[in-house]
Amino acid sequence: MSILAVGSVAFDSIATPAGRADNVLGGSATYFSLAASYFTKVRVVAVVGEDFAAEHENVLKKRGVDTRGIEHAKGKTFRWGGQYLENLNEAKTDFTELNVFEKFQPRIPDEYKDSQFLFLGNIHPSLQAAVRLKMGSVRLTGGDTMNFWIQGTRKELGETLKLINVLLINDGEAKMLAGETNLPRAAQKVIAMGPNALVIKHGEYGATIFFREGAFGIGTHPFRAPALPIDEVKDPTGAGDSFAGGFMGYIASQEELNREVLKRALFYGGVMGSFAVERFGTERLQSLTREEIEARFQVFRELTHLE
Amino acid sequence: MSILAVGSVAFDSIATPAGRADNVLGGSATYFSLAASYFTKVRVVAVVGEDFAAEHENVLKKRGVDTRGIEHAKGKTFRWGGQYLENLNEAKTDFTELNVFEKFQPRIPDEYKDSQFLFLGNIHPSLQAAVRLKMGSVRLTGGDTMNFWIQGTRKELGETLKLINVLLINDGEAKMLAGETNLPRAAQKVIAMGPNALVIKHGEYGATIFFREGAFGIGTHPFRAPALPIDEVKDPTGAGDSFAGGFMGYIASQEELNREVLKRALFYGGVMGSFAVERFGTERLQSLTREEIEARFQVFRELTHLE
Repeated sequence: MSILAVGSVAFDSIATPAGRADNVLGGSATYFSLAASYFTKVRVVAVVGEDFAAEHENVLKKRGVDTRGIEHAKGKTFRWGGQYLENLNEAKTDFTELNVFEKFQPRIPDEYKDSQFLFLGNIHPSLQAAVRLKMGSVRLTGGDTMNFWIQGTRKELGETLKLINVLLINDGEAKMLAGETNLPRAAQKVIAMGPNALVIKHGEYGATIFFREGAFGIGTHPFRAPALPIDEVKDPTGAGDSFAGGFMGYIASQEELNREVLKRALFYGGVMGSFAVERFGTERLQSLTREEIEARFQVFRELTHLE
Repeated sequence: MSILAVGSVAFDSIATPAGRADNVLGGSATYFSLAASYFTKVRVVAVVGEDFAAEHENVLKKRGVDTRGIEHAKGKTFRWGGQYLENLNEAKTDFTELNVFEKFQPRIPDEYKDSQFLFLGNIHPSLQAAVRLKMGSVRLTGGDTMNFWIQGTRKELGETLKLINVLLINDGEAKMLAGETNLPRAAQKVIAMGPNALVIKHGEYGATIFFREGAFGIGTHPFRAPALPIDEVKDPTGAGDSFAGGFMGYIASQEELNREVLKRALFYGGVMGSFAVERFGTERLQSLTREEIEARFQVFRELTHLE
């Protein structure tokens, strides 16, 4: 089944303790689409500028991603520069040039309208809501957001959360959104805002999924998946979007949506996030095989499972 | 089989967002012994003052803990006061009165000399080493330490680490000890200092055990156990020592020491830590049943295991 992903396409300039990379393809829609492409058919809606060449689009096309929804606008593509110092969980932004992304108004090609799954990447909550409302019936809508929108567009975000089935955010975002420092209590407060499930990403400690009571016909018990302890994180950029891509991609590849599928999806999210950080930019996500993904899934299982 | 635990017995005065408790029985040896007592026979070596009454000793005795190694000295028992603010992972110390603990010289009763397992609680590394050397052959020695010793008694700690088979510390301590911010690399550096295995406790995110290559006849793959997402942490004091008690207690209850036992031990550590924080002081650890412990073990399993 197919997923429609809406988000940013960007050129990133990244410095980490392992080195640096300049003007490499990035953005939430890019990481998400590449990660999800190993599981299901992906369609992308985003905006790029005149500096976005065929070679860039081919990165997505080679993975079978449908790029007809990428709008080519006059001007430059969104650019972001940042560095990770000792704490690889946190980026220090050097510059943000929104460029064509500033006026992004997502347009959904008619051929995309039958997508059964929708992922709303980290863009203005009103744009997220508009996309969701244009899509009519979908089986599941996933969404992301960040501190910037939680603080600056609270009301709009509140409306959007009613349209999202599974929200994927990190610990700090969940606590900020809920105004609550205890994680399980924060999770219940966020779920009360709309989503049926909340995935909280803990960075190097993995992720936990919390459920609304009765959602998906399953219990409310949370489930936790690990992250792989990785000796060398080359570049953490895109780990969260790659996680979302693995998570949503796996769900879209399954006939049924039940607790076991959501649990495995959380594992596949971690798997794709762990690959993403092994190289700069999207390099590692461009050339994986399904066998490598399954092998790492087994490593995750062995890392956490008793006999 | 029996464990000898050496550490502190204290009276704690604790304030948390959930309330406060004054002069309640605490200390590393107390939490460890109570937690381990549900799995195996525990013997304790510690020092207390004249304010340590029969009612306090009975808390341990009721759980079958052998208290003959508790030395009664002239003066007052170690007292600690602290508070936990929003971040329950970190205590702000209000006061520390070492009292009789300042001159603690652990004496091991002859009846304790046949203990097969040894746990060296968080005391001066030279005292830890002295205890280990007095004990002759044991099957496994576990140990704890903290930032204070890592910074202040580095050389002595280095010697002690050569005598410890499994070191249990938290993320910050592991990184400080190794001088390395990447967790798996920090783990390998600490293991190179002596221990065959290193348990790194991640607070609310669980714990990971790393192995020296070839140690215990098993592979080097790490294993990760979760912590329970708890709605209301009443009092985090003693969570780490309770973890160590569950971990070591379970190991001591098993005939063999293999990878599966160590994995399960990590789960039981998390289970006992999760109970400890539900009430102030040692209250919850005083009145558990083995059935409650097994039921929570199953909750931990369901929290992490795929079908």
